[in-house]
Parts: sequence; structure tokens; C-alpha cells
Amino acid sequence: MKTAQPKPCRARRYLPILEWGRSYDGQALSSDLIAALIVTIMLIPQSLAYALLAGLPAEMGLYASILPLMAYAVFGTSRTLAVGPVAVVSLMTAAAVGAIAAPGTIGYATAAITLAFLSGVILLALGLFRLGFLANFLSHPVIAGFITASGLLIAASQLKHILGIPAEGHSLTGLIASLARNLGQTNPYTLAIGLAALAFLFWTRKGLKPLLLKTGLPPRAAELLARAGPVAAVAVSILVTWGLNLADRGVSIVGAVPQGLPPFTLPALDPGLWRELFLSALLISIIGFVESVSVAQTLAAKRRQRIVPDQELIGLGASNIAASVSGGYPVTGGFARSVVNFDAGAETPAAGAFTAVGILLAALLLTPLLYFLPNAVLAATIIVAVLSLVDLSILKRAWSYSRVDFAAVAATILLTLGFGVEIGVSAGVALSVALHLYKTSRPHVAEVGLVPGTQHVRNIHRHTVETSPALLTIRIDESLYFANAAFLQDLILDRVTCDQPIRHVVLMCSAVNEIDLSALDTLEEINRRLGEMGIALHLSEVKGPVMDRLKRSHFLDQLSGEVFLSQYDAFRRLTGPHDPARVDPAAAGA
Amino acid sequence: MKTAQPKPCRARRYLPILEWGRSYDGQALSSDLIAALIVTIMLIPQSLAYALLAGLPAEMGLYASILPLMAYAVFGTSRTLAVGPVAVVSLMTAAAVGAIAAPGTIGYATAAITLAFLSGVILLALGLFRLGFLANFLSHPVIAGFITASGLLIAASQLKHILGIPAEGHSLTGLIASLARNLGQTNPYTLAIGLAALAFLFWTRKGLKPLLLKTGLPPRAAELLARAGPVAAVAVSILVTWGLNLADRGVSIVGAVPQGLPPFTLPALDPGLWRELFLSALLISIIGFVESVSVAQTLAAKRRQRIVPDQELIGLGASNIAASVSGGYPVTGGFARSVVNFDAGAETPAAGAFTAVGILLAALLLTPLLYFLPNAVLAATIIVAVLSLVDLSILKRAWSYSRVDFAAVAATILLTLGFGVEIGVSAGVALSVALHLYKTSRPHVAEVGLVPGTQHVRNIHRHTVETSPALLTIRIDESLYFANAAFLQDLILDRVTCDQPIRHVVLMCSAVNEIDLSALDTLEEINRRLGEMGIALHLSEVKGPVMDRLKRSHFLDQLSGEVFLSQYDAFRRLTGPHDPARVDPAAAGA
Repeated sequence: MKTAQPKPCRARRYLPILEWGRSYDGQALSSDLIAALIVTIMLIPQSLAYALLAGLPAEMGLYASILPLMAYAVFGTSRTLAVGPVAVVSLMTAAAVGAIAAPGTIGYATAAITLAFLSGVILLALGLFRLGFLANFLSHPVIAGFITASGLLIAASQLKHILGIPAEGHSLTGLIASLARNLGQTNPYTLAIGLAALAFLFWTRKGLKPLLLKTGLPPRAAELLARAGPVAAVAVSILVTWGLNLADRGVSIVGAVPQGLPPFTLPALDPGLWRELFLSALLISIIGFVESVSVAQTLAAKRRQRIVPDQELIGLGASNIAASVSGGYPVTGGFARSVVNFDAGAETPAAGAFTAVGILLAALLLTPLLYFLPNAVLAATIIVAVLSLVDLSILKRAWSYSRVDFAAVAATILLTLGFGVEIGVSAGVALSVALHLYKTSRPHVAEVGLVPGTQHVRNIHRHTVETSPALLTIRIDESLYFANAAFLQDLILDRVTCDQPIRHVVLMCSAVNEIDLSALDTLEEINRRLGEMGIALHLSEVKGPVMDRLKRSHFLDQLSGEVFLSQYDAFRRLTGPHDPARVDPAAAGA
Repeated sequence: MKTAQPKPCRARRYLPILEWGRSYDGQALSSDLIAALIVTIMLIPQSLAYALLAGLPAEMGLYASILPLMAYAVFGTSRTLAVGPVAVVSLMTAAAVGAIAAPGTIGYATAAITLAFLSGVILLALGLFRLGFLANFLSHPVIAGFITASGLLIAASQLKHILGIPAEGHSLTGLIASLARNLGQTNPYTLAIGLAALAFLFWTRKGLKPLLLKTGLPPRAAELLARAGPVAAVAVSILVTWGLNLADRGVSIVGAVPQGLPPFTLPALDPGLWRELFLSALLISIIGFVESVSVAQTLAAKRRQRIVPDQELIGLGASNIAASVSGGYPVTGGFARSVVNFDAGAETPAAGAFTAVGILLAALLLTPLLYFLPNAVLAATIIVAVLSLVDLSILKRAWSYSRVDFAAVAATILLTLGFGVEIGVSAGVALSVALHLYKTSRPHVAEVGLVPGTQHVRNIHRHTVETSPALLTIRIDESLYFANAAFLQDLILDRVTCDQPIRHVVLMCSAVNEIDLSALDTLEEINRRLGEMGIALHLSEVKGPVMDRLKRSHFLDQLSGEVFLSQYDAFRRLTGPHDPARVDPAAAGA
């Protein structure tokens, strides 16, 4: 045994690339290149599809997967996080930008670029001021409810592409009503392609990899082939659409996608637009950060690495600013692609940079081939990806654990489905905070007595304990602060008003971690009122930091009773032969 | 000694008049009549003055002091609370209604009546749904700061009447700038009357009563005469203004006040207006309720009576609805007048009803006499009354006790002075909640070790204690919930990542009153990640209710370590010869 001190330890800040770049070698390079290849193959159809989900031209999805990845490689702390457009943020972009401009207009694209810029600035600011903890106010039930509801919303929003009909709405009910109205216009060719793509993609996700492994393929090759499923669907559907001339039969296609480097773009410098987009940008930043950090932490822990959340904010901020100057839209770390990157053996953020090069090559070389790509196939890619986000088991889990947590999940799911992503997540956060405050405003309080023959005290309602008619001991299981101070006062005054023999009230503070100024005022008030009734107020088991603070006030001078180190001392002194004389009401009430 | 159970005890609800009315007798009648006389004398000039402050015709102040008092006498639980127009609520009414209509218009008066109606409905609803605890979220620092800043704002707003110049603004800076611009137009006669009234009123408040007592007058008569100061100022100034014809010299006078019963009025049934006024009505309701309940509780405690906060909401709600149907505006329990009512010997709410009759007689008989009353005298009445609300010592007190509480007071004062009452109090509440959440999101955490030769554990940074390099024990002094779960996880993972010999982590939960679902998820995550590193997670001193809940989850099945009843048990078991074998990473990480 020794007298230990924790050792100081902080990961280097601001430019993590300096740390891993120094020891980069050929082995890491080959691992990163292989991972980058697999992620690139996965990311090409996803980038196109998420741009479609966001209501943006397909090429903006590719652009959002180039420079932002480079920026994250320089500033991010996760070795394996794969950044780019993701489903939930794309949906939130559509909701935010759709309120300002019509999809397909220049104003819509400009607003999306501005949203990425604002989101980048917000993330950078949160990182520089170390405000990453703000994300903690998104409770797990709210996040789980929000992601599940978003997955359902996204899937519903893509059904129009599978059916080949128009539909609108930011809520599930709105979308379903809109789909139902237009169901008669369903295009059979589009539906056939969409259903075939859905079936194929579900199969590649569930059944292909085991099959390939059974054929004796090495696991990494099997992984690569299985991940190439969407690319295969894209390639085949392009050939079919082109060969059968389906575009002339009403199958909606991607059409001309510009070929070349990402353009240099600038966000709109319009304060009015900034104001309109600010709240959306804040929500996107926080949701994106939470999603990104949770996957980054999970992956880092597996290799006993650490990520630095405040530096992650800077990394994601840089990525979004990079998106805004290169024709992209808001990005964050994606769950599925990061896991793929990790499993494929990525060792450093260089893998992300290599992925960016892969997407850049696609933007330079492959875009003409995408002309005949049916939107239904992209929609199928999205649906298959997001349905894995939907997890209604959180409802059951929350119900069995705590009704309060259940209320937060259920409300977030219902509000997101009913009123869209922004209202859903905002209301979820507000509700979590309100429910937490409500719980702590009515804390658990126990009247305690002495277990006979011991020094232990226990709740009088749960155990047979000794008490005295003149002594009321209350243990409060919560810090005392403004929201629960009045509760305590009502409780004590109700008890002593109804129970006349009481002459001593002891407040047992073993679980009181803080007493704020409101609670101090209330304690003074309780002391004064009890004094006016001839009852002394005592405290017991007050913690060190709380006692330090009480000593800085005048409360201890005014206190009509004593402060006991232990509740047993209080019992012995106040019920034994040393029972102090009844306090003088006039003196105590001063 | 006996095994005690608290006795049930609840005051009768909904119609407290049934309780005190049953035992009403001649002695109570005579006490109530005397108290009512004193309060009536005090309330006549105050009612006129506060109507002026609210920007309303003087008679509306009288009307607000008639039917609302009757309603409170029936529904209220305080024996001595005196209801009517009060300074802060009048200022808030001016701020709310002034944003909708210009003072002096019909629309302005209608909006004030509608505000009283909405406020009444909100108070009733809060009372019926027992939501009175919502008022607890106004922390004492916020209330103290708000009342002080409101007092300063109100005093500043009345200076224009003392000077006889126009001035506008809802903030202190706006008011002062406006006064400074128009200072050249000061009316010397108005100023002379205003200053004389101020000097006289300050003297009656401070110097008159002791003087009267010295002359041998009985205390109650001295009190009555001292309280009549404002009435004397009103009477003398009317005579002077009429005799010297000062109205023709530019002295602003009250003018024609309608004579008669309060009119029957109805709030505007305009949903648009209701929406505009709703937030203001909510703030007025809560501020009024807090002010009213705090004085009612203080006075009730002195006679060992209890008030029922939820029924108080119903009493105040009924008063405000009564105000809205009888030409009044929002009312609440006033601090000064309730103390006067109490000191003058009021025994039951009947004193309030008798006061209402007194004011009714004034409205029927005295209003023609008020024609020549200078507004400067009413302004002086207000200034003298509100300056007693200003108490900047709260700043010093908060500073010495806690920086967080100081921040809340200072921000509330500055925001109220700078941006008006509504923004001030809203921002104060938001800031209090945010600061509380921030504090609990970074809880106090101690690494603990065993005090040699004892069973006690203490902070390793404060005491010389025994520890083991393989054992990390963390005591967390806060409930674990969504806002601080990630903090705990970062802390533990940082420590074990930097301190390789650690093989056991014990979380000491003696001050953990709750673990919510987010924190449970985080504990599972910590357990899994530690398991992947070959480190076991243990808990110790878990409270009963927390343990009950953990047993409803799967956490305890997954936990790689044990749950110890006491931290000493944990030390003995994990550092002694019985140190369990290093956990198997693969098994623990399942």
C-alpha cells in the first residue's frame, strides 16, 4: 500500500495530427488504404442518397465527403471516426432549409451551405470555450427516442421515391397522408426497381457476408464484397434503366451531375438568414456532436485510446466549415461508416483523408455514369440504412426502469413523429430538464429513528426503531436548493403544527451535497419559525464543503440547536438525561 | 420512547371561509373592524397611486380594491393577507399592456382587465392542478434581485410626475435618458409639491410614530395616525392646489374620477390578445403568488397558523377574476398592507371584506374630492413605498456565500434595470436553472482511501490514507443523471487510461440519491469498457431505493465486480489476501 496521487494526463490539444503523424509508417499506411477503399465504396452511394434526403443535388453529397474528411483528419482526435453526410443531420437540414427556400432553388443550396457554416462556427465556439458538456443535457432516453423517430420519419420520407409519387411533410402523419393522397399515381417501373433494390440491399446486409465466408473467402474480402452491395445495386440499376429506357417511362433519375473538383463556395452573409438558421444550426451541431462522440468513444475504448470531446468539437467545426467552402452541407461522424472503417483496420485519421481522395476521384471521373441512376435505388439505400437506427425496445426498457425516463422517451418519439425533428428534440430536452427538476423539487425524505441497541438510524416506516415524542428527525435525500427548499419548509412546519409534543427537530444532512442561498434563507426561516413555537432546530452529519459554506453565513450563529457530527450523537443528546432545556421562544426567534 | 407515526393533518380545502366563519364572534368582529379601518386609510391613496403607476385611470385602483378583497375573503387561507393592487404587479401590468396599446385609450384599460382575467385563470388552473410548486423555481436570489430592481425602476418611473415632465421607457437607462432630455421643462410648482410630499411622507414613515408614542398616545392610535400620513398629504395637497389654483400653472392633477359602484366589465374575448398577454399574465401570476405566499406564510407562522399554497392560488385566482369583472386590474397580496393588517389586530379574512366596504364607500362618496389631487403626491406615495423594497445588501450576502447565487442576483438586477421587468425575471429564472444544472453536471468527486487503523474512508487529497495501486475508489457527491453521467465516465476512463496498474474501480454511492436511465447506460458502458481493459467495476454503499431500481435492470448481472455494503468491506476484500483474481477481459466485456 502507498499514499497515492492520481497522475496528470492530458492528450495533446488542437492539432492531434502532430501526435499520430510523427509515428506514421508503412504498416499503418497499408491498413489505412484498405480501410479507405472499403469506406469509399460504401460512401459513394450514401453521399448521393443523403443529398437526396436533404433535398439537395446529388453532387453536394459527394462534395460534403471530400474536404470535410481532410479537415477532420487534421483536427479530430478519433483515430477511426468517418465523417460525412449522415441520415439524421440530412433530415434536419431538409427541415431547416425547407422552411426558408423551395428544394431545387439556388436559395435552398445556399441556405444549406450557410447552415454548414453556422454549424461549424457553433461547434468551433463550443470547443474553444470547452462547452462540450452542453451535449450532456441530451439525455439518453431523448437521444434514443429521437434517433428512432428520425429513422421512421426518414424511411417514410423515402417511400415517395420508391413509389414514384410526390409527397411532402415534416411529420409522419403529414407524410403518410400525402403519400395516401397520391398513391394512385404510383409508377410501376419505379416501384419494381425500388422493391428489387430494397430486397437486394436487405439481403446483402444480412445474408451475403455469411454466404461469402462459407465459400471460404477471407473475412476482409467478404466484408469488402458485402459492403459493395449498394454499389452493385447502383451499377445494375443504371444499366437496366439505361438499357430499357425506363426514364421515358416515368422513372425518376438523378440526371446530369457536374464533373470536377468541388467548387469554392461561400455562405450567404445575410444576418437575417443567419438568425433564421441559428437555432437549427445549434440543434444540428449538438445532435451531430452527440452522435459523433458516442461512436468515437465506443471505438476508441476498444483500443484503449481516448478521444477529447472538446477537441472533437473543433474537429467537427473545422469539417463543417470545410463543407461550407466546398459546396457541401452539414456533416458529422457517421455511426455505420465509422464502425466499417474501424473493422476494416483503419489505424489513423489518414484513412479518412484517403477516403476523401477516393470520393474526389469519383467526383472527377464517375459522375457522368450516374446520369441514369434511379432515385428509387438511392431511396432504398437510405431506407435500409436508417431502419437499423429504429429501436423501439428503449420504450420497454425505460418503462421497466423508471416512469420518468419512459415519459421522456415516449414524448420525444411522439413529438418528433408528430411535429418534426426540431420540435421533437427541443421538446425532449426541455422535458428531460423539467422532469429532473421536478424530481429533485420533491426529494425523498425519511423520518428516522434509532435501531434499538445500535448506533444506526433507519426510516421509521420501514423498520422498528426507537423515537421520542419530543424529537423529530428528518433525513433529506437530496441537495437543498431553490426548487426544493419550500418543500422542506412545508414538510417540517406541517409536521410540527400537527404534532404538538415536538420540541427538537433534527435535519440529517448525510445526502445533502449542497445548500444554495435560497435553501439557506429557508433554513433560517425554519429556524426562526420553529423558535417562535419553542422548538429547537438541529443539524447532523453535515458534509465538509457544506459546513465550510454555512460557516461563511450567519446561520450557525442563529441556529437555536446544535450541529451534531453523527445522528447517533443527536439521539443520545436530545433523548437522554442530557436533554437540553426547552429553548426560550423569545431568544430563539431573534 | 415509542414507535411513532406522523399524524395525518390537512387544512380544509376550497372554502376556508367555512372553517373560520363557524366560530366568528363579537371579539373577532371588533378586531377586524379596527384593522379594516387602518388598512382602508392606507389603501385609498395607494390604490390611486398604483393605478397611476400602471398607466390606468385612478378609479381602476379603487375598483381593484373592492371585489377582489371580497373574493379572497371567501377563498383564501391566510387570516391576515391584504389583497389589492401592488407596486411590482402594477409595473408589470404597465409593461405588458403598454406593449399593446397607448396609455389613456380604451384598448389599454381593456387589455389590463383582460390581463387580470388571464392571470386569474392561470392562478386557478395552477391551484386546481396543484402546481404551486412551480413558484419554487423562482430562487430567492432571483426574487430579491427582481424586487430590488423593480423598486428602483418604479421610483425612477415616478420622477416624471415629481418633476412635471414627460418621460418614457421600460428600462432604467431609457427612463433616465428620457428624463434628462426633458429636464428643462420642469414645472416648479409640481416640483415643490412633489418634494414637500416626499419629505412629509418619509417623515411620517420614520419619525411620526415614535413622536406620537412619546406624547403618550396608545400604540394603536399612534399606528393609525402614522398610517394616515399619505391621506393627510392627499388632503392638504388637494386644498393647496385648489386654493392656489395650481392646475392653471401646469400642475398635473387627477381630474374627474367617476363616482359610484364598480362597473361590470368583461375581458376582451380576443384569442390574439390572449396569446399576446399570456406570457405576461403567467409572469404576473407567479410573481404575485410568490410575493403573496411569502408574506402570508410569515404572518401565519407568527400565530402558529398554516396557509395552503395551492388554495392560495385559488384565492388569488378568484381575486383576479373578480378584478376583471369589476373594472380592476391584476391584484395580489401586498407586503406592507398585510403587515399593517396583522399588526392592527385582524383576526380573520373578514377584515379584508370590511376593507373592501371602506374602499367602496370611498368610491361612492369621496371621488369628487379627488379632482384637484396632484399626480406628484401620488408619485411621492409610490416612491416612499417602493424604496423600502430596494435592498442591495443581497448582493453582498450572495457574494460572500456563493458565486453562483451572486451571479443570479447580479444578472437579475442588471437585466431588469436594463431590459425591463419581463426580460429580467425570465432571464433570472432561466439562469438559476442553468446554473443549478451546470453545478450538478460537474459534481464534487473525491478519490478516497482508508484512514489507517479505522473503518473510515476519506478524500486522499485531504487526509493521509491507505490506498492500493491496483484499487481506485471514487466517491461521487451527487445523484447520477443525464447531465453528469458523461462527466463520471470521462473521469474514470481518464484515470484508468493514465494509471495502468489499476485493476479494481469502486464507485462509492453514499450520496447518490438517484441513478436515471442515462446514468445506468453510462454505468453499463463504464463496466464494459473497464472489462475490456481487464479492470473490474464495483459499487459500494448503494442506497435502498437506488438498489431497488438497479435490480429491475440487467446492470447487476453484467457488473464485473461486486456490490459492497460498506466501503470498508470493499477495501478489505479488494486489497487483502482475498483479492479476487484479475477479471477475464473477454468474459467481462460480454
